Amino acid sequence: MDLVRSVLSGDRLALARLLSQVESGDQAGVEALNALFPHTGGGQLIGVTGAPGTGKSSLVNQLALHYRQPPGGEPRRVAILAVDPSSPFTGGAVLGDRIRMRELSGDEGVFIRSMASRGSLGGLAAASAGAVQAFDAAGYDIILIETVGSGQSEVEIAKLAHTTLVVDVPGLGDDVQAIKAGILEIADILVLNKADRPGVESAERALQGMLKLGHPTKRVMHHGRTEDVAAAKGEQAAADEWIPPIRRTVATEGKGIVELAMSIEGHRQFLESSGEWRGRERARLQNEVELLLQGELMSAWRSRVSPAQYEAALDALVERKQSPRQAVAALLNGHGGKA
Amino acid sequence: MDLVRSVLSGDRLALARLLSQVESGDQAGVEALNALFPHTGGGQLIGVTGAPGTGKSSLVNQLALHYRQPPGGEPRRVAILAVDPSSPFTGGAVLGDRIRMRELSGDEGVFIRSMASRGSLGGLAAASAGAVQAFDAAGYDIILIETVGSGQSEVEIAKLAHTTLVVDVPGLGDDVQAIKAGILEIADILVLNKADRPGVESAERALQGMLKLGHPTKRVMHHGRTEDVAAAKGEQAAADEWIPPIRRTVATEGKGIVELAMSIEGHRQFLESSGEWRGRERARLQNEVELLLQGELMSAWRSRVSPAQYEAALDALVERKQSPRQAVAALLNGHGGKA
Repeated sequence: MDLVRSVLSGDRLALARLLSQVESGDQAGVEALNALFPHTGGGQLIGVTGAPGTGKSSLVNQLALHYRQPPGGEPRRVAILAVDPSSPFTGGAVLGDRIRMRELSGDEGVFIRSMASRGSLGGLAAASAGAVQAFDAAGYDIILIETVGSGQSEVEIAKLAHTTLVVDVPGLGDDVQAIKAGILEIADILVLNKADRPGVESAERALQGMLKLGHPTKRVMHHGRTEDVAAAKGEQAAADEWIPPIRRTVATEGKGIVELAMSIEGHRQFLESSGEWRGRERARLQNEVELLLQGELMSAWRSRVSPAQYEAALDALVERKQSPRQAVAALLNGHGGKA
Repeated sequence: MDLVRSVLSGDRLALARLLSQVESGDQAGVEALNALFPHTGGGQLIGVTGAPGTGKSSLVNQLALHYRQPPGGEPRRVAILAVDPSSPFTGGAVLGDRIRMRELSGDEGVFIRSMASRGSLGGLAAASAGAVQAFDAAGYDIILIETVGSGQSEVEIAKLAHTTLVVDVPGLGDDVQAIKAGILEIADILVLNKADRPGVESAERALQGMLKLGHPTKRVMHHGRTEDVAAAKGEQAAADEWIPPIRRTVATEGKGIVELAMSIEGHRQFLESSGEWRGRERARLQNEVELLLQGELMSAWRSRVSPAQYEAALDALVERKQSPRQAVAALLNGHGGKA
């Protein structure tokens, strides 16, 4: 296919066209992704999530700028996928794009794409997975996957990544603390952004406390320590458990970004040296397979049941003649229920 | 069944036991819900969602207190379902419970239950739907469904309600604005909580602006106006469109709660007089049926495919021998793929 060849050769317009096909679920996009899949696996997938207002977009921008000009290293090609699961509206995501454009525009080594929800969460997660594969096949070394919020949807999308950053800021309320307890479970690295704000010490202590709950037998790393830097040099290769380090940043001023990138590299090396990289890859891909399966099973079911049957079953529900679970059993047996 | 009879008779312990069965997916719970379903339909289901930190729990508590002692009206029985989709952790939800207990404890007319995520989002939404049915059958007049965050998960859970409140506060950042654009679409009533804070005027203007985007042909109601109060008296019965009113509250001081309850009543009367109540009921129940269907189809599939087949297909993915979409096609055709 021409599109596949063009994407592999680094053609940005072809990549943009493919991403649109993936987002809309076109068959041509599916076929292109199948053809491109053997060319994936080279990219490092980094998920960035956290509550609204924590400055994720700025952080992602700064990471992108860092990877474009790493001190003493080769520039990497960077793709950014900004996913907004909260809405069919694209307003938020588009706004984010415009802000980004100022700092990253005109750089041919950076590709930015937003994706907003279209209907189901499963559909969005599957489309996001497809977009990540397209970036990977197109030769982007670093693929940053940013989500807008921090709910279950974001957890689903975090499952696409090799390394997941959870971003927090000092001074958020208790309501947010409740969310963090959940999202912490998916964190490979904790980022305490806006670290020039008051309350940073107590926020870090709170995060450490929560980490200790999750890793009771291990000492938790402090932000100023160098365990994960050592890991970046391969010195911690024997470690069988990764304890999420806490990194302080002030993304708007570019502070702490180099150290954060070292932690990200440390996590990658940990995954490789411990043999967990393959396990992560497998879990990532299994997650994608199950999302696609769910969608396929539902559409196969829809094509089997007649609209009239389905309508009759729903009417019987509204009239309390059968329960939702009874309706499901009847619909799966090929009749519409008692109505 | 004894459990069903006990729940119908108002036995709180029986209800608690049923809710545990529903949450864990026990077959006994499924059967009890089937038997109880004809007794549902009397409760008014009110969803409360919004970004973290907007004071949803306080607002829900105040609404519950209001419905227990409505000025000039009969006390209503109130159930509260607090759903935390962000986590398998129950920490946050349990914390919320303790805070609630102080104000509502000892009142036999109030039942409070938390539900945290167990695995899939679909599973949580289905369990929440079951819990709501249990409350409804047990004779609770007002069922408040509160979610912790404001992502896609919360949208799914909002679909369980007849009337959805979206809570906002003055002074949240742009990042949150992006989320609001999405969540606004599901709002029947907008609540501007913490309305004693600076910035309340501009926050209300921003909300009005977003509402106008969604309802371009109609004038948007101001918080001080009485259109929805008129609706509460049945005077707006002929209106064919509901424009979400904006209500200011200071939940911690109980301010604005009576007016908010009038808007909720106005929305109920609008649904009934416009004939949309049945449509809402149908959409609610259809949503539940599809959640249950998805779960059933996936578990039926799991029982058909052999673990060895599935493992081989995942290995072939990791080795890039087949793409996720090719693996799905092969698994649905009963063989594990090319590996």
